[in-house]
Amino acid sequence: MSDRFANWKPPVIEEGKLTKWNWMVQGVKGLKLGNKTDIGAFTYINANHGVEIGDNVQIGSHCSIYSLSTIDSKQGKIVIKENACIGSHSIVMPGVTIGKNSIIGAFTFVNKDVPDDVVAVGVPARIIKKSVGIK
Amino acid sequence: MSDRFANWKPPVIEEGKLTKWNWMVQGVKGLKLGNKTDIGAFTYINANHGVEIGDNVQIGSHCSIYSLSTIDSKQGKIVIKENACIGSHSIVMPGVTIGKNSIIGAFTFVNKDVPDDVVAVGVPARIIKKSVGIK
Amino acid sequence: MSDRFANWKPPVIEEGKLTKWNWMVQGVKGLKLGNKTDIGAFTYINANHGVEIGDNVQIGSHCSIYSLSTIDSKQGKIVIKENACIGSHSIVMPGVTIGKNSIIGAFTFVNKDVPDDVVAVGVPARIIKKSVGIK
Repeated sequence: MSDRFANWKPPVIEEGKLTKWNWMVQGVKGLKLGNKTDIGAFTYINANHGVEIGDNVQIGSHCSIYSLSTIDSKQGKIVIKENACIGSHSIVMPGVTIGKNSIIGAFTFVNKDVPDDVVAVGVPARIIKKSVGIK
Repeated sequence: MSDRFANWKPPVIEEGKLTKWNWMVQGVKGLKLGNKTDIGAFTYINANHGVEIGDNVQIGSHCSIYSLSTIDSKQGKIVIKENACIGSHSIVMPGVTIGKNSIIGAFTFVNKDVPDDVVAVGVPARIIKKSVGIK
Repeated sequence: MSDRFANWKPPVIEEGKLTKWNWMVQGVKGLKLGNKTDIGAFTYINANHGVEIGDNVQIGSHCSIYSLSTIDSKQGKIVIKENACIGSHSIVMPGVTIGKNSIIGAFTFVNKDVPDDVVAVGVPARIIKKSVGIK
């Protein structure tokens, strides 16, 4: 990772309030956030049923990470493993695991598990190639 | 609806300011909001030309409900009828009516009326099936 | 432009904070904003590597204007020329120039330059027609 993380500190997160970086979490108790993670502006995380974000994960702006989707009554823990990247304006649905080093493109709807080391894009997400070496 | 609405109260909405749930309305006087409605974080409603949202309507996060679209100078009242659901990151354009019990998928661009009891998805929205019984 | 801009004044923009209209800029020193510009709610501008927005430009809600994309380490000045319009939920990537009078559709991923006087849509953006006379 670039040295912009040299002075990284865990963010202060208050229930339902915008952080300093203007992203927001509901169900804060259910959120487990790794080191040197980076979350973009206007991203919303619902952690009521658990959201675990590994070290060095990057999430773009305007994403929705839903461990609870009230519209279709789905719920389940979300796991985003270390070094994964999620492009902006993407949605991660309940119960999904995203593997290590994987890259999710912008505007992607992730409703199934994504393995390690791949690039996935689209609505719904499909794997288009290996991610190893492209970051 | 689930009993999370048992204690539902009309939200406090101030012109142009984030609500407690971090959605925002411009033209508040033009908004008519039903009971037990649920609106997601970072959703923006422009109600200058009227937005009527029926009982039990659910709107996801990051939606745009535009009774006025300044970019193309379109304007017109939007009606979202009872029990309709709008998936996250969707856009509803001026003058559109969305029917009872209908479901709009995530990332959908709704620029024409949607009848009752259907599922519509895509850019622009197209009907893909009946919604009855799938909620 | 409509006379809603008759009393237009430059917006007050504080680093990393929501403006009165609920859009947000990081790297404010790198932003050059023209007259009678209009930027929508929940739009995020990263101007660390320069963002120049011309007169009469309109940007919809929920857009991401990235002169720095940390996920893929791209960076470069963005120029959006006079009278261009960017539809809501669109992403403009580092180094891109969008030409005069051009229109970017909603949900568009702009990762290459767009010339003057065209309409571009899609992920990634492709030109679909001339824009002259359609506004």
